[in-house]
Amino acid sequence: MPFECPIPLQTYETITLSHGGGGKLSQRLVNDLFLPYFNNRYLSQLHDGAIVPFAGGCLAFTTDSFVVSPPFFPGGNIGDLAINGTINDLAMCGARPLFLSLAFILEEGFPLKDLAEILASIRTASEVVGVEIVTGDTKVVERGKGDGIFINTTGIGEVVEYACIALRRVQPGDRVLLSGPIAEHGIAILSLREGLDFETELKSDTAPLWPLVQNMLKAGGDGVHALRDATRGGVASVLNEIAQSAGAGIVIEETEIAVREDVRGACEILGLDPLYVANEGKLVAFVAQDAAEQVLSAMRQHPLGLEAVQIGTVVSTHPGKLLLRTALGGTRIVEMMSGEQLPRIC
Amino acid sequence: MPFECPIPLQTYETITLSHGGGGKLSQRLVNDLFLPYFNNRYLSQLHDGAIVPFAGGCLAFTTDSFVVSPPFFPGGNIGDLAINGTINDLAMCGARPLFLSLAFILEEGFPLKDLAEILASIRTASEVVGVEIVTGDTKVVERGKGDGIFINTTGIGEVVEYACIALRRVQPGDRVLLSGPIAEHGIAILSLREGLDFETELKSDTAPLWPLVQNMLKAGGDGVHALRDATRGGVASVLNEIAQSAGAGIVIEETEIAVREDVRGACEILGLDPLYVANEGKLVAFVAQDAAEQVLSAMRQHPLGLEAVQIGTVVSTHPGKLLLRTALGGTRIVEMMSGEQLPRIC
Repeated sequence: MPFECPIPLQTYETITLSHGGGGKLSQRLVNDLFLPYFNNRYLSQLHDGAIVPFAGGCLAFTTDSFVVSPPFFPGGNIGDLAINGTINDLAMCGARPLFLSLAFILEEGFPLKDLAEILASIRTASEVVGVEIVTGDTKVVERGKGDGIFINTTGIGEVVEYACIALRRVQPGDRVLLSGPIAEHGIAILSLREGLDFETELKSDTAPLWPLVQNMLKAGGDGVHALRDATRGGVASVLNEIAQSAGAGIVIEETEIAVREDVRGACEILGLDPLYVANEGKLVAFVAQDAAEQVLSAMRQHPLGLEAVQIGTVVSTHPGKLLLRTALGGTRIVEMMSGEQLPRIC
Repeated sequence: MPFECPIPLQTYETITLSHGGGGKLSQRLVNDLFLPYFNNRYLSQLHDGAIVPFAGGCLAFTTDSFVVSPPFFPGGNIGDLAINGTINDLAMCGARPLFLSLAFILEEGFPLKDLAEILASIRTASEVVGVEIVTGDTKVVERGKGDGIFINTTGIGEVVEYACIALRRVQPGDRVLLSGPIAEHGIAILSLREGLDFETELKSDTAPLWPLVQNMLKAGGDGVHALRDATRGGVASVLNEIAQSAGAGIVIEETEIAVREDVRGACEILGLDPLYVANEGKLVAFVAQDAAEQVLSAMRQHPLGLEAVQIGTVVSTHPGKLLLRTALGGTRIVEMMSGEQLPRIC
């Protein structure tokens, strides 16, 4: 295990919000509690999904529960968020999304018209990528034992033959690409929750990334080494995890990372660093140096990658660390998020 | 749609516990709200899982969320219940369980030692059948927004080549087999919840049915037409659903359906009809007349089928109805459960 959290899991007797925040304590829960029980060659890769053999094919399999509060927000709702989230986890495995399951945990008293609206969004989101919802489940819990609606989506995809995506392929010299401006989802949710009012409406960036990834893989082939969508914990947490698992350093340029003006303003008011704020439609890619230009140009030809940029490189120094070169020319280490910055963001 | 619930969905403005009970209103929610949004050739079969093509093979895919309260009960806990439940849903498709995903929604304050105990049960249950847990997710919700622990398990299985299981294959003349005595899971949970104390301990029957099903399929081949585990809503609800979807009648013999003495006693005290009480390790099978004897004898050779019996037959009269021939020789219609008999049973 390349990473040692300074806070041993044994310090805690009960689950805290930080265990679910996507930061250090989440990682500790997985490494210290879950993995010892279930370590196998698939799970131990700790990717967004598992790639397993099935009938001679290469199957990507991924699960995610969505507990976002509130369930409706500018730019989407828990329904399209759940569908896009699972589509994206499959895409990050280099897999074309094929089939989804859908499981609801509803709280007694949840309005049926809200459920219908969420179902309509789910249908629309699944149609965009042509994924089929083929099986489902519904449970109802008593009032006060849930929070309106929780959704689990689990997906099956087929790894496309021109892809070879694996975190272990990340290596010094790789270019780090980012598909667009960051922090929009988390800020949209938090502004709504805090009742903040801005001149422009801050919208979630929830979107299905498979069509963009398909373009990237067609352009870069096996020059695309690894992909991650920057959800819980934001770009900083995702890059930290990859640096740790690759045993390499990652250096990124602050000036290359775009944050929309209004999002930046909201981050300042809320006291948040956009690097740690969740995205739901942005990815980071690790691409071989000689394929980076083609992949970047393929990204920019897709609406979800218009503002794609190279933000950094993988280096052999500083193994396991993420370094930020600031606008002023300094360099600082960007740590894994330690506490719970934003609960219930997805 | 062969079945018309007398209570239109529109009567309700919000979700009630009955929407999750496995009875009429659950069926209404699926038929009137979910299916119109997602009708496709896979989902509309309304089986325990979907059977989809993948890489030239035949893949079974099924999802289930577990919200049982309390999470620990005699005979098991929410962990092995979740693993066995998904193994069983795959088995009911005639599929060998291969891979599972595991997604937790934990409430702030849930004891880590309870989580560890549940994980240990999950590992043991998955090892019994040799299924691998290959991907997972954990979310944490604030205190008061959940109920300790909810688990979603989603499974992938490979439909074995000697099976041809589909509800549409159920036809008049088919024998109805039941794998053992009923109502044990529901009664174990409810006795615990109500603080009832009996001389013997009432235990959940949670168990993985795949090894039993494998024996049945090897013995009966495509003479095994359909399989269902009798969970929420019990044997009565499951047989009603099958009668409706087959457009045939089912006649069962009360004297053939075994209920253990202590379970029967608890049902009487609690005012429950064992036919509607959930099982977590019992199945009903619809088998061609000429294969019934072999299948029954194969069942009895497995520890989970020692007490297997033929409980009835499919008839061309009374389409869509379940009829019970009572011990006294009368015949009565057994309706689909209408309300919520037992919330949070699985």
